[in-house]
Amino acid sequence: MAFERLIRFVAGDGKTYYGNLTKETPTVEIEGSNVEILSGDIQSGLSKTGKEATVSKLLPPIEKPNIILCVGLNYRQHAEECNLAIPSFPTIFTKPPDALAGPLDDIPIHKDCQSQLDYEGELTVIIGKDAKNVSAANAPDYILGYTIGNDISARNFQLPVSVSGGQFGYAKSFDKFAPIGPCIASPVVIPDPQKLKYTTKVNGEVRQKTSTDDMIYTVAQIVEHLTRGTTVRAGTAIMTGTPSGVGLFMEPKGFVGNGDLVEVEVEGIGYLRNRMVFEK
Amino acid sequence: MAFERLIRFVAGDGKTYYGNLTKETPTVEIEGSNVEILSGDIQSGLSKTGKEATVSKLLPPIEKPNIILCVGLNYRQHAEECNLAIPSFPTIFTKPPDALAGPLDDIPIHKDCQSQLDYEGELTVIIGKDAKNVSAANAPDYILGYTIGNDISARNFQLPVSVSGGQFGYAKSFDKFAPIGPCIASPVVIPDPQKLKYTTKVNGEVRQKTSTDDMIYTVAQIVEHLTRGTTVRAGTAIMTGTPSGVGLFMEPKGFVGNGDLVEVEVEGIGYLRNRMVFEK
Repeated sequence: MAFERLIRFVAGDGKTYYGNLTKETPTVEIEGSNVEILSGDIQSGLSKTGKEATVSKLLPPIEKPNIILCVGLNYRQHAEECNLAIPSFPTIFTKPPDALAGPLDDIPIHKDCQSQLDYEGELTVIIGKDAKNVSAANAPDYILGYTIGNDISARNFQLPVSVSGGQFGYAKSFDKFAPIGPCIASPVVIPDPQKLKYTTKVNGEVRQKTSTDDMIYTVAQIVEHLTRGTTVRAGTAIMTGTPSGVGLFMEPKGFVGNGDLVEVEVEGIGYLRNRMVFEK
Repeated sequence: MAFERLIRFVAGDGKTYYGNLTKETPTVEIEGSNVEILSGDIQSGLSKTGKEATVSKLLPPIEKPNIILCVGLNYRQHAEECNLAIPSFPTIFTKPPDALAGPLDDIPIHKDCQSQLDYEGELTVIIGKDAKNVSAANAPDYILGYTIGNDISARNFQLPVSVSGGQFGYAKSFDKFAPIGPCIASPVVIPDPQKLKYTTKVNGEVRQKTSTDDMIYTVAQIVEHLTRGTTVRAGTAIMTGTPSGVGLFMEPKGFVGNGDLVEVEVEGIGYLRNRMVFEK
């Protein structure tokens, strides 16, 4: 493995590089720091170069992915707060490549998406090589590493069924509604993805606090399900579902507003910090 | 417009080209015929070359798209046979790029997808330039043309809600579950997409027969909805929904089996002809 914590960034020379963080670094301190440059890419493989560069702007840790795959209803406590039965397979929906955003990016919110804007902090898996018909037992061979995602959701387009025909994806597919980062932590750094603590905060207030041991379907089971008869390409991001505590199920509702700062932190990986910026 | 009916094909020299059919040609007769070669691609624009080539193998008329967007429940008669209320916006789900297949391709069916295999013949729109926040009135400026699609569906993974959490996409996203073609008919050839007759046949038996004037949301309204705050890239395929007559709602059920031939024909465009080949 050529990295511990893989980042992508624009350097002082204006070029984009992959880089390796050798230790966990607060996300806002990555910009301005020196990191080792890696050559290659996720599809063809990454190699150490021995050269360094200064991070000018931190980017999402992957280039535009083939697709972003998402799991719904994957935490027992969240399924309970939704009052929904647990389905016999993982609940799957998608986001398109243009939903990708960086770990410190502002998120532009279209005027039709502002009334019930919500967050979903999620452990996010990055696939390292093309995968098809992969068993849960073999899933670790196809996982490049782990990052953090926020499955931003315009609930007014998601619920009730009479609005969207019950389909989740549209409400979550707007441009930049999938910030991920700051880095892809290698399985060397995260040996067990089912034992991670994480929190989501809005303007510093904790809204979601969980451990990935509450997940219904494990990362390995999700990979098996998603690759059944289906090629999942290297560089694909898989958001593995959100725990309890989303704004929709708070009383009163905890939807986010213009200028609100949403932070998702997973131990060992770092944090996302994205400000919601309402468009006029 | 550089074409009437745009095709992609492999020629005798083993290279892949775009070509123009100047008249409607039965799909099985396109292979072996001579067509004019076009230079360029959908993203950068296509131009006539004056050169010809012989079609050796017909391909899907687009390269792998950014994403395949799909509309559910978009025909009044189909909504009635499903006994479902019409939602207040189009019902949207997706298929990934690897779902793309050609108009004459065999479709491999994974062993877990064989028990309730179904067809959905659909008018399919191809976007010609990157589109965001496009009104229905301006939608024609972004439409490259029209083709035919079959939204192949493994119903055992789609219904009931207890299986999939009510999400449609997974059941329809297996490799090659989105055959499209044979050509992209230009708006010059198809001036009004809401006045097209089409049929779906299984082994020659008519299963679906409709006109696109039964669509609930028009092509232009669908483009407006899909581009709200969202970049829909040039080359994206939009499947606009299926009419009544799918196998799921026949009595007895009309699911398709190993070796069955599914044909979807839309007047003025041509037909798809795909054989289902069950994997062991």
